[in-house]
Amino acid sequence: MQTVSENRSFDGVQGVYTHASEVCSCDMTFAVYMPPQAEAGPVPCLWYLSGLTCTHENAMTKAGLQEHAAEAGLAVVFPDTSPRGADVADDEAYDLGKGAGFYVNATQAPWAPHFQMYDYVLTELRALVEKEFAVSDRHGITGHSMGGHGALTLAMNNPDRYQSLSAFAPIAHPTRSDWGRKQLGAYLGADETAWLRHDSTLLVRSVGWHSDILVDQGSKDQFLDLLKPEALSAALAEARVPSVFRMQPGYDHSYYFVSTFARDHVRWHADRLAL
Amino acid sequence: MQTVSENRSFDGVQGVYTHASEVCSCDMTFAVYMPPQAEAGPVPCLWYLSGLTCTHENAMTKAGLQEHAAEAGLAVVFPDTSPRGADVADDEAYDLGKGAGFYVNATQAPWAPHFQMYDYVLTELRALVEKEFAVSDRHGITGHSMGGHGALTLAMNNPDRYQSLSAFAPIAHPTRSDWGRKQLGAYLGADETAWLRHDSTLLVRSVGWHSDILVDQGSKDQFLDLLKPEALSAALAEARVPSVFRMQPGYDHSYYFVSTFARDHVRWHADRLAL
Repeated sequence: MQTVSENRSFDGVQGVYTHASEVCSCDMTFAVYMPPQAEAGPVPCLWYLSGLTCTHENAMTKAGLQEHAAEAGLAVVFPDTSPRGADVADDEAYDLGKGAGFYVNATQAPWAPHFQMYDYVLTELRALVEKEFAVSDRHGITGHSMGGHGALTLAMNNPDRYQSLSAFAPIAHPTRSDWGRKQLGAYLGADETAWLRHDSTLLVRSVGWHSDILVDQGSKDQFLDLLKPEALSAALAEARVPSVFRMQPGYDHSYYFVSTFARDHVRWHADRLAL
Repeated sequence: MQTVSENRSFDGVQGVYTHASEVCSCDMTFAVYMPPQAEAGPVPCLWYLSGLTCTHENAMTKAGLQEHAAEAGLAVVFPDTSPRGADVADDEAYDLGKGAGFYVNATQAPWAPHFQMYDYVLTELRALVEKEFAVSDRHGITGHSMGGHGALTLAMNNPDRYQSLSAFAPIAHPTRSDWGRKQLGAYLGADETAWLRHDSTLLVRSVGWHSDILVDQGSKDQFLDLLKPEALSAALAEARVPSVFRMQPGYDHSYYFVSTFARDHVRWHADRLAL
């Protein structure tokens, strides 16, 4: 692991790092915020997964999470959203290929050699962060849009790995959305049975969650037809999953939305990650 | 109006009163909590509508609203749930007739002469409370189960009359529930077009709400199949209605549920009723 940059932020450290990823077969960049409390010992760790077109950098810069994480004593990890590099397959569309890994392990050409973001976030980067940073074994996960999808699906598929869960405007029902069918088809193939475990609305019904879930959605989100929040909210209610689903009036899909509610999400995770 | 009882409670007054109702053609009993702030001038007013089998007394005794209302400076009105008296029609079932007015104006025999709870709460008791108590023209409404249904439907049908809205475990889709079809059929007749404005799930889609809505629902509620919370939660999300729908883990349908979240609801209304 190499350090790209480290900046003091709210008495903690906002860092950017690179490492050679075996899982993605390329160099990967990620960011970590370490709060001041980490100087005294390991702190719980919140994973923030970003959306389409983002890198590790967007949320790190615009979501305002550091202030809240410093207050709560949480580390925050910001992974990239796809493999990167000249030899990594891509597509002309913004929503496939680079910047659009969808947090799955691709099985199809030309994506399979590098697009392994599910295992990357779940296992490889997790192990690296636990080795290199003063984080405890208490981890929470959240994310925005495609990253909200990633947070929900990674957590529900791996309940032993995450103790807390939330999402901002997640892609909630990708097996029934143009934000989903295209990508799951490309990465996983035409057999839709392989898609099912990457759809949070379906997972809510099939496996549920061991704790409670916070979801915020802006009522003026320009992508409501693609996100399908009503599918997720109905599934949470039908499956009686402990949850808070908030339709926030007037907010769009931007980081102004994320930053407005970032404090609530950090607090949500901090309360559940505390021992 | 006659005073049945008045008891000091959290530096305010919990009273029970009777009056001759013209709308229901019978004597009606109701309760009002006036907080200490009312001594200095009119205070905003929260209406709490109760559920099947209840009178004005259940929530007054068991919901714990007074402490929160005193803290927030809200009056709370507890109407009865049906007309009362020897000459008022009734049914052997607990969910039709006395204690089960469903907050509609009955048009069918034998119910029409007395079962006018919609107009009673909306107009007659409102005018009496505004005349006899130091309340302002800012009113909010909430309720539990059948009363949650009443709160949601009265408010959405009369947005100029209520500035804030919430519900505890409401009967959310009565036109598709055995808690609803039986009663709406009995009180309003077989023509289901007359039922539509008494179904909050349908109203969310048709008229919406001018502000935001808080709904709490217990995940272990023994009446989930009758309440149909998923219909309401999906409608709120699909219609993009500003709202917070909380599936509360482990809570049932009792006043232990209501009292647990009473503070949040009082706070919700107080924040929105303040000028």
